[in-house]
This record gives sequence, C-alpha cells and structure tokens, in this order.
Amino acid sequence: MSDTEKPATRRGFLAGVAGAAAAAGISGAHADNAKNLPPNVADWTRQLGEGVGTRPYGQPSKFEKDAVRRTVPWLTATPESSVSFTPLHALDGIITPNGLCFERHHGGIAEVDPADYRLMLHGLVDKPLIFTLDDLKRLPRVNKIYFLECAANSGMEWRGAQLNGAQYTHGMVHCVQYTGVPLKLLLEQAGVKPGAKWVMAEGGDAAAMNRSIPLAKALDDCIVAYRMNGEMLRPEQGYPARLVVPGWEGNVWVKWLRRLKLGDAPWFAREETSKYTDLMPDGRARRFTYVMDAKSVVTSPSPQAPLRGKGFTVISGLAWSGRGKIARVDVSLDGGRNWRAARIDGLVLDKACVRFYAETDWNGEELLLQSRAIDETGYVQPSKTELRKIRGVNSVYHNNGIQTWLVKPDGEVENVEVS
Amino acid sequence: MSDTEKPATRRGFLAGVAGAAAAAGISGAHADNAKNLPPNVADWTRQLGEGVGTRPYGQPSKFEKDAVRRTVPWLTATPESSVSFTPLHALDGIITPNGLCFERHHGGIAEVDPADYRLMLHGLVDKPLIFTLDDLKRLPRVNKIYFLECAANSGMEWRGAQLNGAQYTHGMVHCVQYTGVPLKLLLEQAGVKPGAKWVMAEGGDAAAMNRSIPLAKALDDCIVAYRMNGEMLRPEQGYPARLVVPGWEGNVWVKWLRRLKLGDAPWFAREETSKYTDLMPDGRARRFTYVMDAKSVVTSPSPQAPLRGKGFTVISGLAWSGRGKIARVDVSLDGGRNWRAARIDGLVLDKACVRFYAETDWNGEELLLQSRAIDETGYVQPSKTELRKIRGVNSVYHNNGIQTWLVKPDGEVENVEVS
Repeated sequence: MSDTEKPATRRGFLAGVAGAAAAAGISGAHADNAKNLPPNVADWTRQLGEGVGTRPYGQPSKFEKDAVRRTVPWLTATPESSVSFTPLHALDGIITPNGLCFERHHGGIAEVDPADYRLMLHGLVDKPLIFTLDDLKRLPRVNKIYFLECAANSGMEWRGAQLNGAQYTHGMVHCVQYTGVPLKLLLEQAGVKPGAKWVMAEGGDAAAMNRSIPLAKALDDCIVAYRMNGEMLRPEQGYPARLVVPGWEGNVWVKWLRRLKLGDAPWFAREETSKYTDLMPDGRARRFTYVMDAKSVVTSPSPQAPLRGKGFTVISGLAWSGRGKIARVDVSLDGGRNWRAARIDGLVLDKACVRFYAETDWNGEELLLQSRAIDETGYVQPSKTELRKIRGVNSVYHNNGIQTWLVKPDGEVENVEVS
Repeated sequence: MSDTEKPATRRGFLAGVAGAAAAAGISGAHADNAKNLPPNVADWTRQLGEGVGTRPYGQPSKFEKDAVRRTVPWLTATPESSVSFTPLHALDGIITPNGLCFERHHGGIAEVDPADYRLMLHGLVDKPLIFTLDDLKRLPRVNKIYFLECAANSGMEWRGAQLNGAQYTHGMVHCVQYTGVPLKLLLEQAGVKPGAKWVMAEGGDAAAMNRSIPLAKALDDCIVAYRMNGEMLRPEQGYPARLVVPGWEGNVWVKWLRRLKLGDAPWFAREETSKYTDLMPDGRARRFTYVMDAKSVVTSPSPQAPLRGKGFTVISGLAWSGRGKIARVDVSLDGGRNWRAARIDGLVLDKACVRFYAETDWNGEELLLQSRAIDETGYVQPSKTELRKIRGVNSVYHNNGIQTWLVKPDGEVENVEVS
C-alpha cells in the first residue's frame, strides 16, 4: 500500500474554511432570504414558535424530506415480500434512527398484539416453555449495539454498477442498540438435551419465515430482543420480539419471533435452500453462509449526496464486519491505485458499524472514490474483481466488494466500476 | 456500606422463570385471545401484513401509546415556555429515541429554514466569521454520545415528593449520539484574541435565549452539533444546529444557535441571573453552577411502571454524571439502610447515561427502592436530606438527591421520601 495522496493539510483546511466562510454571504446553492440573514433578525426570532405538547412523539423537520426509506419498485413483485432501504447518504455517526432502519419482509409486517404474543421453546429440551412478553421483560437483559445487514445487500451489483445511490447499493444495513434476553438464558431454563445441535427460529409473520441456527451460536451471543434504541421494537423490525444474531445475515434475525425448536440437524428451510444460498459459477450453491464479511461504503459524497463546490470537504462512510471489530478503513480517491488510512471517529464496537472520515481539499478534479475495510481478524474487503474471480456473478448474496463512486468536476456522483 | 440484601441467586432466578413460564397459559393481566395462543396459528400469521413503502419514515407500534412525551399543564403558564418529559419508565438501554427526547423551550420551537441558517462568530476574534449550514457540514466532525439534563430536572421535588412518575420527576434528561463540529475548530478559524475569556451563545428562537460559557469549556469539548442519532436535529432540539456542552446543564446547550460572541466577562443574561441560579437558604444565589452532578433514578419499577406479580424481576435505572464516567451504582430496597452494587450493563461513556440493573426475587413485600450513583471522581449522589442541609429548599435547580419509590404489596409504586 502506498500513500501518495495529498493529505488534508492544516493549510488546506484553513483555506477551505476561509473560503466557505467568505462565500457565506453569497447565495450560491442557497435559497437565501435576505431578510433572515445577519445582521437582520430572522423571521423565526420575531414570533413565538410552536409550544410543547402538540407532538407527544416527535417528528423530523419538514425540511428533511430527503432522509426517508425508499423502495425500488421494479425489484420485487409485491410490497409484502420486498425491501425498503436506509438513506445512508443522509445519515452520519453509527446509530440509525428507528424510523429509517431498512425493512425486508417476506409476508408483510405482522401486526402482533403484545398481550397475545407467545414465544414457544421446544424440541430437544428437558422442559418445553412458553414465554409471554411480560415474562421476557422480567428476565435479566443486556444492551448491545450491533449492525444488521441483509445478505442481499449490494446484491443487485454483482453483474455491474446498477443502482445510483448508497441508499440502494448499500442501504440494507442499519445499526441500533438492542435490549433483550440472552438466548442462552432461555435455553438454560428449558434445558438443552445432549443431542441438540441446531435451533430453528420461526417468525409469526404470514411467511412463517424460519431459519436454522447452530446451537453454538445460539449459546454464544444471540439475544431475544424486544427494544431498539431504547423503545420497543418497531412493527417492521419484529415487534414485539425478534432474534438478534450478531454479525450474521439479517435473514436469520427472525422477526415476530414465535418459536424456537431445538434439533439435531438443520431444517433446510426454504430460506436456506432455495434462497439465501450462494450460487457459484459451477452451478453448485454454498449453504449456511451466515457471516457478513467486512464491508464499507462511502456514504458522502455519493450519488444522492453530491459535492457542492470546491474546497475543504469531508469524505464520510460506514464500515462493519461480522467477524468482530473494524481495525482500519482505507480510502482511495483514484479507484484503488493509492490508499490512505481514514480517520475512524467515535465508538469501535464488536459487530457494529463504525464511522470513518477522510478530510480532503477538493479542487474540482475527477475522483474515483473507494473505501475498504480491514477487520481485527486481518480480513481485507476485496475488490469486485477479486470477489467475482471466486464467486462468479450468479449469486445474489454476500456481495462485499469495494464500491466505486465517480465524482465529476461538477460535483455530481455516479456509481461506476473500475477494473 | 453493608450488603445484607438477599442476592438474586441462581435458584431464585430459576424459580422465577419457571413460575413465569408456568403462568404463561393463564390470562392474568393479559387480554389474551385464545385463538392466537399456541398451539393455534395466530391471526397475524393467517394474513399478509402491510408491505414496504407506505411508511417512508417509520412509527412506533400502535400498542406503544404509553411511550410518549408528557406535559404537566399546571407547571407553566404557556406551552411556548414550557417542558415536555422523556418517558423514562417506558425506555431501556442508554439511547433515547429522538421522538422521545424531552423538550424545554423559552419561546417555542423556532422553525429555521436551513437555507437561511447562519452562525455568526464575532467579538474578541481576529476575523469574524459567518457559517452557513453547508459550511458546517463540510468541516471535520466528531460523534459523541452525551446525556443532556435540564438544570431544573427534579426541581419540583425540592420541598417533598410531588410528581408521581419517573417521567415527571426525572424526565428532563435524554442521551443521544451527536454529530457536529468541535467548537474549538471554529474558534481557531476566527482566531481568539488574548483578552477573550468567555463565549456568549445565543439562540435564534423568539426568546433569543443566551448564556455565557467560559472559553476554557468552549475550547475543551463543546460541539456545534447538527445531528442526533444519525439524522439531522429535531426541530425541538435546535434544528439545524445547537451547542453541545457535555456534562453541563441543558440551558447552556443553546438551540437554533445563531451567534457566538467572545468577550472578557460573562454577559449576566436573564437565564444566568434571574433564572438558572441556585437560591440558597440565606437568600444569596449561586451563579454559573453549570455542572450536573452525579444522579440516578430507578425507572422500573416506578409509578408509571408498576410490578405485575411476584417472582423474579429486574429493577432497572439510569445514572449519569457531568464530571465524567459513572463508576458504580448502588441500589437499596429498604430506603437506604442496606445497599448492594447494581449491575451496569452496556456502554460506560464519559458524560453519558449508563443503564443499571438489580435482579431480585420479589415476594410481595413492601419496598423502598432507591439508587445512588458514584462517579469516577468519587462523588456520591447525596440523599435529599443531605442535599437540603446545604442547599435548603428555595432552589429550583440542581436537585440530584436520591429518589425513593414505595413499592406496595399489590405492585403499585408511589413517589415518597424517607428521612
């Protein structure tokens, strides 16, 4: 790895800020209203604003309509078995607000009455158990921040750059704080029989979505979660309880969790045979490829978040790894010829998103922006070329290839590939 | 400190769970619908649920109407200069969802058009600067999780137990991840003149709320934040930019921030003379008492979150300190005669909330529940009696006395005081 990029020098930063400040009085891209600009007293200071009490549950500003989940209508045949994407380009930090967490359903959002909710634990156990929601809430609980990524995230990009926006190429990931009961505790209550090796998790949705999970993972760090970011789970995230399977593909994080069955072999459910297997070039399919390998994406600039004018700017992105902590993120401005280490800011947690920044002074030249994540196991996020050499292009799932954004002289950004 | 409480033994836990599980088939407090209970297939599994796309910005479940901000109508004369409270009793973990963060306004919620937003930096600086929102967004930024507590939190409790709920007694606190520009960077751009010792921060609201902050704090860890929990600030939290003053009373976290002026002395603004000073028993007032000392509260059980039946249960609460990290939280079941260390779960961050738990097997006896926080400086949260010995009862602000909840045999909970 070489590092021949011009670093974001102190001088460059100062010039950038001075330029930005000098330009502040000029309207440029702004819909400036002269009467609201200093030294005038703005309209909103001249009149009383809305008081408390009208919004018991608050909403975003009316000016932030860009920060919404979006769908790709042609992608799926029905809205009930479909996906909406997290607006990564409109977010920063590592926490995803609950209202913007991507959705992927197989039979629509089950509307579960919490009073009637039950979680059944049975199969190869000493004592089958049924838990109410209140039962779960009375048990010892833990709080963990984890990323959740759909196995199909970036799945439309296997055969080439297709969707023009980080929201669409990488927006099937979010990262929140979960609160719930360690699955190990529930299994211990039921008593695991000696022959048990697998757990089948089944959802209460119309698809009765089910997946097989090795018992070792269930006993390690899985959680039956009922809260996200402090409040109860959102309906589209499995209200009132879902499985949290840290670092593993989202499909096994079964929502509206109604049943956990222990057995001695996997169930070979639809979603781990017909779907969520990785079709290889020779026509065979990899099964049970649960772990989400290290991945990253520049979220800004990106097609939905173009650069607005030259000068000092911050390249920002997200990285995550299902194998542990992110150790480093590199950024390239020239399509992977030269790399420099990004600045990771904020929390670096196990199996959670990290936020990285690369400050630069943009003079209007064309950029081929890339990022690559390296996790604590030493794994390096591969290029798409490297990935295709092994995996071919038949698969939908587990595409963690390096993303390239072309930044044009006018600041617009496009999804491209470099060989 | 003695620790004579019966610990939550493994046996107690097992009995509790078994009891809960055994009771699962009995309706009890549940509005159980027999046709939805195992082994039946529930209604929500029999029909397709709502698909993606109808809620670009998601909302909580319709069953979670209890988790809302609430006001106390008699507390203030107008809704524009008033407060709504975080429903602490209905939350867990440390992150507060943006829609539930308490509000305190002095002239209502300023509706600031982000295109017209300007931040002016002037006074004792080499070069006055004006920043647009885009300018701020192009600068180096940091992500930090901090608690924000209003100086008046628990202010109604100085003369005795008054409001019956953790939401009302302690709900002027929240904890989110902020993203923004270190104030130090902005000050360095403007160039601080030698005589400057104070910064005046002024809001763009109808009250033009302003406060004086020592330059040393501004240069230490203050942030001009424009995001909370990833998305842009909510209108009621100062959209599009607010000051973050870690560990200090919320009043100085000026919202809708429009002006920062450097000077050689404090401004003695209304909100640091007539208000937000601590009236002592002798009639004199403490000024500039910025730091929020260590504090904690049991959020569940609490008056709005009663105990539902005997057996194993988790006592849960929040602790925070404006002086750094929380080192320990103790819990008492008998009004402070005996204490035991609570289990702190999840992240322990500087000037952020921590979540604590104390597992217990409740046999229906009356409890006098308390918690006390100890921070890394060794400071111990005082009893209300200790606090009043020094501070009297004239003050509104900085009441961090130990809260007592009376848990009655029927599980209902009441705000009480013990001498």
